[in-house]
Amino acid sequence: MTDGGKAWVTLATNDSYALGACVLANSLKRVNTVGRLVVMITPGVSSAMRGVLEQTFNEVSEVNVLDSEDAANLALLTRPELGITFTKLHCWRLTQYEKCVFLDADTLVLANSDELFNRDEFSAAPDSGWPDCFNSGVFVFTPSLDTYAKLLTFAVEKGSFDGGDQGLLNLYFSDWSTSDIGRHLPFIYNMVATATYSYLPAYKVFGQNVKIAHFIGPSKPWLQFFDSSTGLVQPESGQEHLQDLLQSWWNIFRTDVHPRLTPEMGESATEV
Amino acid sequence: MTDGGKAWVTLATNDSYALGACVLANSLKRVNTVGRLVVMITPGVSSAMRGVLEQTFNEVSEVNVLDSEDAANLALLTRPELGITFTKLHCWRLTQYEKCVFLDADTLVLANSDELFNRDEFSAAPDSGWPDCFNSGVFVFTPSLDTYAKLLTFAVEKGSFDGGDQGLLNLYFSDWSTSDIGRHLPFIYNMVATATYSYLPAYKVFGQNVKIAHFIGPSKPWLQFFDSSTGLVQPESGQEHLQDLLQSWWNIFRTDVHPRLTPEMGESATEV
Ligand SMILES: O=c1ccn([C@@H]2O[C@H](COP(=O)(O)OP(=O)(O)O)[C@@H](O)[C@H]2O)c(=O)[nH]1
Ligand SMILES: O=c1ccn([C@@H]2O[C@H](COP(=O)(O)OP(=O)(O)O)[C@@H](O)[C@H]2O)c(=O)[nH]1
Ligand SMILES: [Mn+2]
Ligand SMILES: [Mn+2]
Repeated sequence: MTDGGKAWVTLATNDSYALGACVLANSLKRVNTVGRLVVMITPGVSSAMRGVLEQTFNEVSEVNVLDSEDAANLALLTRPELGITFTKLHCWRLTQYEKCVFLDADTLVLANSDELFNRDEFSAAPDSGWPDCFNSGVFVFTPSLDTYAKLLTFAVEKGSFDGGDQGLLNLYFSDWSTSDIGRHLPFIYNMVATATYSYLPAYKVFGQNVKIAHFIGPSKPWLQFFDSSTGLVQPESGQEHLQDLLQSWWNIFRTDVHPRLTPEMGESATEV
Repeated sequence: MTDGGKAWVTLATNDSYALGACVLANSLKRVNTVGRLVVMITPGVSSAMRGVLEQTFNEVSEVNVLDSEDAANLALLTRPELGITFTKLHCWRLTQYEKCVFLDADTLVLANSDELFNRDEFSAAPDSGWPDCFNSGVFVFTPSLDTYAKLLTFAVEKGSFDGGDQGLLNLYFSDWSTSDIGRHLPFIYNMVATATYSYLPAYKVFGQNVKIAHFIGPSKPWLQFFDSSTGLVQPESGQEHLQDLLQSWWNIFRTDVHPRLTPEMGESATEV
């Protein structure tokens, strides 16, 4: 596999998540990844933001749950609630790459993680809420139109137990928890923000090894207050334990992303 | 391995945890386990409660961190904070059994789990706080004086990153997260109470398969209010999601354990 066959893939359906995608891409550049940077977008992303994404990523791939014409997609029309779930599945169609890692737009790469391209489909890290499920914010996959079609058919037939891609992918790759330890990514590749306090002694020992942080839940980094005079993020009450990780996100936003935004787009992130 | 070589082992250092141990033992009897029932106790358990434990368990094993005379135990005298950690380690000295499963006194067996005796040392389920660590409330082990001595030496030298047995055992069995999927017990064998709400959709799908529940944290079942006129437990505020599991615990307590207690001991559990 040449380096050109390796890609990091993320998704943004609106300008807010696109800001996350830009910070993520720059975090990957800062650790000198050999992988290509790919963002999938839907028409909900503004054309101005699309321009910024085109400057930042190697490839911007427009996807739309309704643009395909196969049978599964037609059946899908009767299940509109699965729309966002399906959007992430489009990553399997990126067959111009050999091996990919999907990263949620609310993740941040802290250290070079190119070794993930040596893992096989389907690899992911445990979800801390129910650790026999994997968290679908970071996963290694092999693009394949065949897999894409199977996932679509499966989704239409079985649905998703949580209404999102995670519930669907856990049903589809249902032997993840029992079949091969090699498919279990170490938690340091998808450390969810809640883990900074749920087992604090473990975070103190292993937290220094974290390579990819994931801001799950409603408190996204771009929704925090940022004081542009001091350059410091001010986490909302109850999120103080995330100060350091949020500051890392904002440092990249301020230096690498903000200068490329037009004034209107800047307002998508919250500044005081 | 004959059935007599299989044992469930728990620990109680005081009368409150001993009540938990009694409910646990009766939960194992109700599912017709073939395993022996063993409780390790320290002198902190009253003699009256000890009598109840002797009626309930096949074996009551008195342990004391200071009763051994090997070098590691002497070194231990300089590390008094590790006392409770070390108490659990005594389970490796139960060499009259071939294969054992340790269960915290705050666990409850909901379905026959005798298949756990077919697992090898060291098997445990992921900890939801940091899922590359295992939770040490349920684990499969092979009694061995050699392992016991190594654990003691290791504990004195390395300590425990969380001050408890879990931090110690995770350092000692440090390849658990990467070496063998067979050593990963399914989460249904150690479903921590917090998982009933941390990823609710998963609990709704997989919760019906739970075989062993674990009441981690400060809200132990025996500390909840129980209305003896209605027979219903009244979980403290914020613990309502645990109603069903707590009721299962109290049903066993009321039927199988309470009748054996003397009036004074009854007060260890909270009744309204
Ligand atoms: O309105 C949305 C919701 C989600 N996403 C994408 O889907 C991922 C998963 O959603 P999210 O991260 O919000 O879920 P969480 O990780 O908090 O469960 C995001 O990171 C984005 O890449 C998006 O583009 N627009
Ligand atoms: O004062 C104590 C504390 C703990 N234990 C034993 O050690 C186990 C682990 O402690 P606990 O269950 O309270 O920890 P948690 O599971 O809440 O982390 C208990 O279940 C008991 O078996 C005990 O006997 N006395
Ligand atoms: Mn996410
Ligand atoms: Mn416990």
